[in-house]
Parts: sequence; C-alpha cells; structure tokens
Amino acid sequence: MKPIPPALLSATITLLAVFFYFFTAFRVGQLRGKHDVRAPATSGHPEFDRAYRVQLNTLEQLGLFLPLLWLATLYPLLGAWIAAAVGVVWLVARVLYARAYMADPDKRLIGAGLTGLCTIALLILALIGIGMGWLGLR
Amino acid sequence: MKPIPPALLSATITLLAVFFYFFTAFRVGQLRGKHDVRAPATSGHPEFDRAYRVQLNTLEQLGLFLPLLWLATLYPLLGAWIAAAVGVVWLVARVLYARAYMADPDKRLIGAGLTGLCTIALLILALIGIGMGWLGLR
Amino acid sequence: MKPIPPALLSATITLLAVFFYFFTAFRVGQLRGKHDVRAPATSGHPEFDRAYRVQLNTLEQLGLFLPLLWLATLYPLLGAWIAAAVGVVWLVARVLYARAYMADPDKRLIGAGLTGLCTIALLILALIGIGMGWLGLR
Repeated sequence: MKPIPPALLSATITLLAVFFYFFTAFRVGQLRGKHDVRAPATSGHPEFDRAYRVQLNTLEQLGLFLPLLWLATLYPLLGAWIAAAVGVVWLVARVLYARAYMADPDKRLIGAGLTGLCTIALLILALIGIGMGWLGLR
Repeated sequence: MKPIPPALLSATITLLAVFFYFFTAFRVGQLRGKHDVRAPATSGHPEFDRAYRVQLNTLEQLGLFLPLLWLATLYPLLGAWIAAAVGVVWLVARVLYARAYMADPDKRLIGAGLTGLCTIALLILALIGIGMGWLGLR
Repeated sequence: MKPIPPALLSATITLLAVFFYFFTAFRVGQLRGKHDVRAPATSGHPEFDRAYRVQLNTLEQLGLFLPLLWLATLYPLLGAWIAAAVGVVWLVARVLYARAYMADPDKRLIGAGLTGLCTIALLILALIGIGMGWLGLR
C-alpha cells in the first residue's frame, strides 16, 4: 500500500473546514430571509445575530487555521499527520462552538477554548518546523 | 507553443480576485472620508454601509473561494483550467454583486446566487479531486 | 553556506503575520471579559470597540497580504526576498496601526497608509511575476 501523501491529509482537512464555513454562511442567508433582516443590516433578530457571529468567528478562525495548517504541512515536525490530527480536533471544536453558540452564546467557551488550543498547537508546530528550516535541520 | 502551467491560471484568477477585493476595501476608505464616518464606527451613512458590506462579503466569499480554487488546482478533475473557468464566472458574479448592492441591496441576489453556484462547483471539483487522491486514482 | 530557500522566507513572514493576528484576536477576548461585552454583541465599550476593529481590519488586510505574498513568492521578480522584505515593512505597519488605533482611532492613518503601500507593492510584484509567466519569460 502506498503511503498517504502529507498534502492529501491537509487538503482533506481544508476541504472539511471550508465546507463547515460554507454551511455557517448558508445558515446566515437562510435566517436573513426567515427573520426579514434586510441588507445591509447584520443585526435584527437574536437567532440571526448569533448565526452571523458564528459565521464571522469561523472566518476569523479560518484566517489563523488555514495558514498555520499549511505551514505545519510544508515544514512538518515528525510528520504532517500531526498537523492534520490537530485539524480534526479543530473541526470538532468548531462544531461544538457553533452548536453551543446557537443555543446560548454564553455556552460557547468550551468550543472557543478548544479552537484556541488547536491554533496554539499549530503555531508551535509551524514555529518549530520553520525554525528547523532556518537551522538547516531538514 | 508550451502548454500553460495549471498553477499559472489559478494564480492569475487569484490575483484578479484579490485586486477586486482591494478595490472594495479602497472604496470603503474613500466613503469613510466622504461621509465622515469616524473609526471605529462601521456604519453611519447608507452609501458607506453598503460599501462596507460589499467589502466584508467579498472577504467572506474569498475565504471560501481561494482555498477551494487551490484545492481544485492541486487535485484537478480533468484539468485545472475547469477550476480557473469557474473562477472567471466567480469574478463576474462578484462584480455583478457589488454593482447591484451599491445601487440597491435588494438587487444583490443574482450576484450572490451566482457566487454561491461557483462555490458549490468548486466544492464538488475539490471533493472529487481529493477523493480520487484517496482512492489512489492519480 | 546553503542559500535560504525563498519559500522559507515567506513562510516565516506568514507565521509572524498570523501570530500578530492571533494576538489581536486574543486581546478582543480579554477585553470582552474586562468590559463585560456579552456575545453576540461586537460593540459596547470604546476600548473593546477599538480592539475589535483592529482585529477585523487585520483580518481584512491578511486577505490581501497572504495571497499576494505567496503569488509573489511563486512568481518572483528578481528574487523572493523582495516580497519578504515588503512583508517585514507590512508587519511594522500593522504594529504601528494597532498601537495608534488603540490610543486614538484618528491616529491610525500612518499605519493604514503604510499597509496600503505594502499591499500595492505586492500587487505590482505579483502582477509582473505572473505576467512574465504568461510571456514565457521564466
């Protein structure tokens, strides 16, 4: 059996992350219609407001996640599967965050905290991987 | 004549998409001055509000478009030119969206819908392309 | 001594840019607690409002910066170190912007202007680099 190319793992995680983000954006469009929140307003009904924050927070976090995931894939520490494994946890964290936020914004902290831990893990992986590049250790 | 490298097509689409986004951000800066909307406010005059939503929506959509475009370029189905062709339609959709939104936010739906169709097309291309990678079919 | 791979320079700049953005997001979380701005609100206290705009503006600018940095790395003009050097100035501009904005939003213009100049420089580098690709000059 051929080994799985490292980029394929990160590409798969990227696709899942982007698909989840697409879903959060789609929900905002749906709720804009349901609650008649007319553009350009981005607020107007509690359910819409929560969905919009879930979408925008997911975008804010994607801006951290995707660059770090790919830095850790290009400059792997031990193996690119570690970055992909963190990516799986990140995806779980985002689903927890979105579900909790829609139910009650005060309950978002577990998902938000787990998202943050994944981001810090990827920051450290990328930092060590790139540092090894500078030291000529790869 | 040498064939066009697939990445060059996607790089060109990326450059055009980013340039268009740059233009939407530039307009916001101009209108902030024209209508004296003082930072940190992101609302204060209808024309400014529309321009700000056009910029932010373009960023929201770029967060879907750019990762999917490059996944579909790295894992092409038939050829990377298909992803680039979808990218051209996406660019047209964004221009339609921005022009219509500035005239009347209620008229944005054609551009928004076409943007969404392009995103779904890229999702499907990337999904099949990555799926073929997992099946060892490339 | 081995030459430094061009991608390593851009990867390092990317890591620094993403780390800075992480810091701006972290500050928003801290100030949300300090000033008791309850989600889903993204406004409620002047210091929080400024921090949130600094975070979101940094994300808005990352959406320009990261794609252009990597286009200019993949299609370098003279050498990829030029794009990385612009990246260093961009990082300085973002720190100036964030510090000035937190003190007084009206003082953000030097940092904002320098950010814009860096973006335009990267746009031009990427445009010429990609144009040379189309002309077969690489």
